[in-house]
Amino acid sequence: MASTTKLAPLDASKLAITKNASPKTPLPNEQLKFGQSFTNHMLKIQWNDKDGWKNPEIVPYGPLVLDPSACVFHYSFELFEGLKAYRDSEDKIRIFRPDKNMARMNKSAHRIVLPTFDSEELIKCIGELIKLDKEMIPKQKGYSLYIRPTLIGTTAGLGVSVPSDALLYVITSPVGPYYSTGFKAVRLEATDYATRAWPGGVGDKKLGGNYAPCIRPQLDAASRGYQQNLWLFGDEKYITEVGTMNVFFVFKDPKTGKKELVTAPLDGTILEGVTRDSILELCRTRLNPEEWEVNERYYSINEVRDRAAKGELVEAFGSGTAAIVSPIKAIGYEGKDIDVPLLPGQEFGELTNQVAQWIQKIQYGDEEYKNWSHVVADLK
Amino acid sequence: MASTTKLAPLDASKLAITKNASPKTPLPNEQLKFGQSFTNHMLKIQWNDKDGWKNPEIVPYGPLVLDPSACVFHYSFELFEGLKAYRDSEDKIRIFRPDKNMARMNKSAHRIVLPTFDSEELIKCIGELIKLDKEMIPKQKGYSLYIRPTLIGTTAGLGVSVPSDALLYVITSPVGPYYSTGFKAVRLEATDYATRAWPGGVGDKKLGGNYAPCIRPQLDAASRGYQQNLWLFGDEKYITEVGTMNVFFVFKDPKTGKKELVTAPLDGTILEGVTRDSILELCRTRLNPEEWEVNERYYSINEVRDRAAKGELVEAFGSGTAAIVSPIKAIGYEGKDIDVPLLPGQEFGELTNQVAQWIQKIQYGDEEYKNWSHVVADLK
Repeated sequence: MASTTKLAPLDASKLAITKNASPKTPLPNEQLKFGQSFTNHMLKIQWNDKDGWKNPEIVPYGPLVLDPSACVFHYSFELFEGLKAYRDSEDKIRIFRPDKNMARMNKSAHRIVLPTFDSEELIKCIGELIKLDKEMIPKQKGYSLYIRPTLIGTTAGLGVSVPSDALLYVITSPVGPYYSTGFKAVRLEATDYATRAWPGGVGDKKLGGNYAPCIRPQLDAASRGYQQNLWLFGDEKYITEVGTMNVFFVFKDPKTGKKELVTAPLDGTILEGVTRDSILELCRTRLNPEEWEVNERYYSINEVRDRAAKGELVEAFGSGTAAIVSPIKAIGYEGKDIDVPLLPGQEFGELTNQVAQWIQKIQYGDEEYKNWSHVVADLK
Repeated sequence: MASTTKLAPLDASKLAITKNASPKTPLPNEQLKFGQSFTNHMLKIQWNDKDGWKNPEIVPYGPLVLDPSACVFHYSFELFEGLKAYRDSEDKIRIFRPDKNMARMNKSAHRIVLPTFDSEELIKCIGELIKLDKEMIPKQKGYSLYIRPTLIGTTAGLGVSVPSDALLYVITSPVGPYYSTGFKAVRLEATDYATRAWPGGVGDKKLGGNYAPCIRPQLDAASRGYQQNLWLFGDEKYITEVGTMNVFFVFKDPKTGKKELVTAPLDGTILEGVTRDSILELCRTRLNPEEWEVNERYYSINEVRDRAAKGELVEAFGSGTAAIVSPIKAIGYEGKDIDVPLLPGQEFGELTNQVAQWIQKIQYGDEEYKNWSHVVADLK
């Protein structure tokens, strides 16, 4: 990368807007499918190693035109983020903890030598994009605007080296609730023959390269009747993640009656999920410490199996931006199913439902919690 | 993927050619840089899960136009191959072992649920592409036409799932010899804090996702005076690969005087290099078995360090399509350099030079060996 001259920083004040002359009509809410339809505009910010960040542009949503030798196609210089904008009851538009996503995006960029940027400036640009497409942010509770910031290396040429050119772009997609008819608990297959992430790897970064390799094992699990993989690691068969989500388990100590919420520690093999972090903080501050422990620790599928057999497994759920929480009802392991308890007649456990409500309230501004729900526009 | 109807196979007989109306003049040989300039045409073959492979097309080299939500940009549905075409002394155009590259490309595709294809048919299409751009295949010995088959998922939409659409394309680039002024031995840094591949991962496949994460550790090594990383694995510090190449070491048994050529076994963490395979076969059949052993086995940086100290390390080299072999002169490990012997006054070891000559002779058709050098065109 160039060095002697100072590179221009990402600067939201230089944003230029070209409006879409033929805007689409928003789809009816019931026709929204995750990430299938997009709004009328997108944000694009070019970068190169001589000038730094170019002026941000909002332009009509449209295709990218790239040389077939561009490094994004060959060496996976690509990373992304996922966050959501919500329309609150007073017609304010809110984004949930965008500072966390921006910080993670910069960490991902640094790891694969793509350019980093000032998080605040990108949040401002995203705010302008959302305001421009405000008509396409669904109004109904449970609906939101999914925001997909993406950063790709665009250098033409087949040498494997530091990209000299990059494009940061943001597209947005109106989405419905992940569970349109209420929670639906999933069946997981404990997977040890394929490994999602490892020490010294990049499993804690939101790089494109972490995703494509997960589909074949998912298809294999599906062929045996399981919707997702529960990713195990190492001889100890530690539980790490589920599908593309973080995962939580609740155990009960038979002696004390105390419950324990457990998730894997951030040791470099676990995605630093914003929802994961939010759940940990809310549970640590809101659950009664005389009844609950909240722990980031290593735990194995064998612990889950053994404690389920003894009646000490209370519930389990995945966590992520798309669904907030995803309840688990069974785990296939060594040819048998470990049954995970749900509330009687329900598709979820008690804490699963509780954390979903806590987070949703903050996301929609029904409750203010710290600065987690960032207001980007007041449409009133 | 669609299932009930039969999907069309890749069919070279349906190839359609649109010639470039404004062809470029070939660059002078001395201006060629690896993968920086391309020929006048490219091969494109679309695929979707309803119809299968569409008719192959050769069209003027030009940009790809893709939706910003295309799965190649977000989830790294991408893989590639690298092979070379050579113009022999009788003006025949030859490709080195393309069947091996096609087989590996299909394995990569299967692993990330991109469509597979009939290798022979793609080789035929590539042959036609090369014939059309024959004026841009350099004539001088050491020069060649680098061929880059690439397969990407092009489905628009942000769901992480099996791509319904894909594009296989092939671009070609005239290239000079990797070492334009003779071998130049490199200094490596033994790297254990970053890990290239893992059992159950995809390090044996030529996926884009394996490459971008290697650049940051390479920059770190460069800052300490080493050109490339020697990738170690596990507590045993096994030697796996170097940079983006396979790697070979030669040891000498002090008791018997017998030499041993060693490389890591194909255990799922090692790229199944075509040059690696060629070197193993030629050494097994051409080296005197009373003087040589050729072994695929685990060996560690500690073994290299200890045997170097005892004078038992003879030479070492990387292997790959770009350079054939890349001699190694030193390895930084635990704060010290392990010196790797070179021939007196030279930048290479004896076997390093020998295998380069063996392979180059076959590549340029100066020697026929099995069907390794595949003639795609006779320009006489």
